[in-house]
Amino acid sequence: MDIKALTERRERLLGTQTPLFYEQPIHIVRGQGVHLYDADGKQYVDMYNNVPCVGHANSRVVSAMQQQAATLNVHSRYLHEGILDYAERLTALHADPLSTAVFCCTGTEASEIALRMARAATGGRGIICTDATYHGNSTEVVRLSAASRDPEGNPEIRAIPFPQKYRPLDSDASEADLCDLYLARVRAAIDDLAAHDIPLAGMFVCSMMVNEGLPDIPAGFMARAADMIREAGGVFIADEVQAGFCRSGRWWGYEESGFVPDIATMGKPMGSGLPLAGVVARAELVDAFRKTTRYFNTFASSPLQAAVGMAVLDEIEDQDIRGNVNTVGRYLRSSLDQLQPAWEPMGDIRSHGLAIGIDWVKDRQSKEPDRQGVAAVVNRLKEKGFLMGSAGALGNVLKIRPPLVFSRDNADAFLTAFQESLQELHGAG
Amino acid sequence: MDIKALTERRERLLGTQTPLFYEQPIHIVRGQGVHLYDADGKQYVDMYNNVPCVGHANSRVVSAMQQQAATLNVHSRYLHEGILDYAERLTALHADPLSTAVFCCTGTEASEIALRMARAATGGRGIICTDATYHGNSTEVVRLSAASRDPEGNPEIRAIPFPQKYRPLDSDASEADLCDLYLARVRAAIDDLAAHDIPLAGMFVCSMMVNEGLPDIPAGFMARAADMIREAGGVFIADEVQAGFCRSGRWWGYEESGFVPDIATMGKPMGSGLPLAGVVARAELVDAFRKTTRYFNTFASSPLQAAVGMAVLDEIEDQDIRGNVNTVGRYLRSSLDQLQPAWEPMGDIRSHGLAIGIDWVKDRQSKEPDRQGVAAVVNRLKEKGFLMGSAGALGNVLKIRPPLVFSRDNADAFLTAFQESLQELHGAG
Repeated sequence: MDIKALTERRERLLGTQTPLFYEQPIHIVRGQGVHLYDADGKQYVDMYNNVPCVGHANSRVVSAMQQQAATLNVHSRYLHEGILDYAERLTALHADPLSTAVFCCTGTEASEIALRMARAATGGRGIICTDATYHGNSTEVVRLSAASRDPEGNPEIRAIPFPQKYRPLDSDASEADLCDLYLARVRAAIDDLAAHDIPLAGMFVCSMMVNEGLPDIPAGFMARAADMIREAGGVFIADEVQAGFCRSGRWWGYEESGFVPDIATMGKPMGSGLPLAGVVARAELVDAFRKTTRYFNTFASSPLQAAVGMAVLDEIEDQDIRGNVNTVGRYLRSSLDQLQPAWEPMGDIRSHGLAIGIDWVKDRQSKEPDRQGVAAVVNRLKEKGFLMGSAGALGNVLKIRPPLVFSRDNADAFLTAFQESLQELHGAG
Repeated sequence: MDIKALTERRERLLGTQTPLFYEQPIHIVRGQGVHLYDADGKQYVDMYNNVPCVGHANSRVVSAMQQQAATLNVHSRYLHEGILDYAERLTALHADPLSTAVFCCTGTEASEIALRMARAATGGRGIICTDATYHGNSTEVVRLSAASRDPEGNPEIRAIPFPQKYRPLDSDASEADLCDLYLARVRAAIDDLAAHDIPLAGMFVCSMMVNEGLPDIPAGFMARAADMIREAGGVFIADEVQAGFCRSGRWWGYEESGFVPDIATMGKPMGSGLPLAGVVARAELVDAFRKTTRYFNTFASSPLQAAVGMAVLDEIEDQDIRGNVNTVGRYLRSSLDQLQPAWEPMGDIRSHGLAIGIDWVKDRQSKEPDRQGVAAVVNRLKEKGFLMGSAGALGNVLKIRPPLVFSRDNADAFLTAFQESLQELHGAG
């Protein structure tokens, strides 16, 4: 079936506004490791997907899924050791206070749990987030994304400008002063909630601000914001849905960004494709949450989730995937740094391990974001067999976020295709 | 590991308030067909779980899951035929206007989609539900359960008394008059929303009111309520999470209850254990939803969901599971009807196929609900190797809801154990 017919059929069955990638959508039928294959057999290097963190169709993950599904897959109101073994191993990987886990199926559900937990534990309602965030798609979680453009419609939310060094609040400020400037916005949000008689529940941010465009955050901001929130009676929630599970070369984005949250949400790579997400938090927060909500999730904390989650952890550790992220991430970053001077559109390169963002600009001086430019590169690279996407508050950040088994050879092949694309689109470098 | 040690470990890792079944919790390690097995090898007949609708560890489902996970499991912004084939087959099973599908991972997410869709399509905000409903655990969906005890805290929701014949609004009324009485409550809710300047979005009810306790609904109520809601500018949402996929002996609970919704939500049995849920609706509602929300769900509409969902449909059809529900459901119901006269606590028996509720009472005259009584029966039957639970607005309904492969032999074995339990707890029948 050709692309046009498939697209039309999709619009009829799933709706006309269902999101699809690329000017010419692709029809993927198979995945293996870092590769995806389309219906014509064309091979792509996947540099987009963070969910299959240990590689597409990872045999250990598939086998764990098959074996557990053939043995037992049932809800969590019976005792089962698998989920306890998994919770024990997962919490042990986290900072000490995050000792207790609540499992669910999606990042949105994890965000819901975190919000309900923060509110149950503090008795507050007010949530502070950034003005370019995305934590999920439920009615309440969407408020966090909507608050900056519709403050009246979302009275319990305060959105602060996300901290960054590339397009900062004050371009003359030193990094230390910039940090203070952004912290003053957190302070102002706390005060404004208080002025409106909305007690603070907490602050909710992605540990590496991935959707904001992976900004370089002024040093110290996260730890000091967390302290400020706690002093004001709130809890600090780290969204690890994209940042966690060794994406940065450390287990958790909060380690990379230098802070310890009270609650951390997890999702995407956690089950390498099985819907598995969750929250870890201080025990008393989980107890307050469970006591007030009697939370139960039919498909979560299941033997299936436990077996697959465990297989992902096994694979990360046995294959030294964290080591690979550090080695290949550093190599790719330094290679891109070397290319940057020759290519005007590469305005700013920012990275943590195998999460790399290139801020695409019309010119270096004005830093004017080039959304069309990055789309052109993304589509060109797709033609050359490399899949990636764009992201960021301004939609102009080339997002490089491959499965964590991405190798140095993959990086070299990409660098060649990337330079060719730049040459074709922007002339000699 | 013994039950006590496991329970303590669970409290430490998952929180002290994590729900667990039975006075003495059970430690389940294996499932096959209609059976579950504990760590000591004791066999139980599962009469509780509606998720593994085609049986625990169903080999066709497990094999479909394994094969697809080993081939491709990726998000939905590439084209893939599997999800289109599944959407086509699923919508074809529904009433004609429900032609378009949105997939997600859990019933809660399906409820969120339905609410957002109703509000996007109508421009309204007000939702009418029953006073004993449960549609999920997100901040917004929980409002539907909370509205009856906290109307001020949930100003956009109106909860009406759920329609029933056993403890009706007026016990002297004929069924037709009773229907009118309940419809008058729907009317009053519509009017009250209007009086508060809250435009109506819709009404959201379980097609068979399973959580309410599976009441016998006065004839005509659902279809007339749906018409009334539509005339007032709202949409009628059927929750098929428990009622759907042949539980009643028909494909959908709304067929059983005689109405056609504008939106139907699905979940639990849909993936027989894989987190798979979704919404079907009229095409223009889906388009309105997608256009305003740009909804995307990382794990949903995936090749894995499609393959497993398809295997469940194959199994239901190839094994004539619907036929089994009708045969065994009728047999079990008539057998229970025969027992009822001898046993005072069996106040009322209500059923649709293999969803059976027995309203447990202290005496037939007063109909005083006996919550402790039903808990005693549930625990006694567990000892005898039959797993079930309690439900209903008053928590006193013995809930019989086995996997749909439950056989006549299973029913006979249960009926014996049930009579023994009654004898042991209540003396000679």
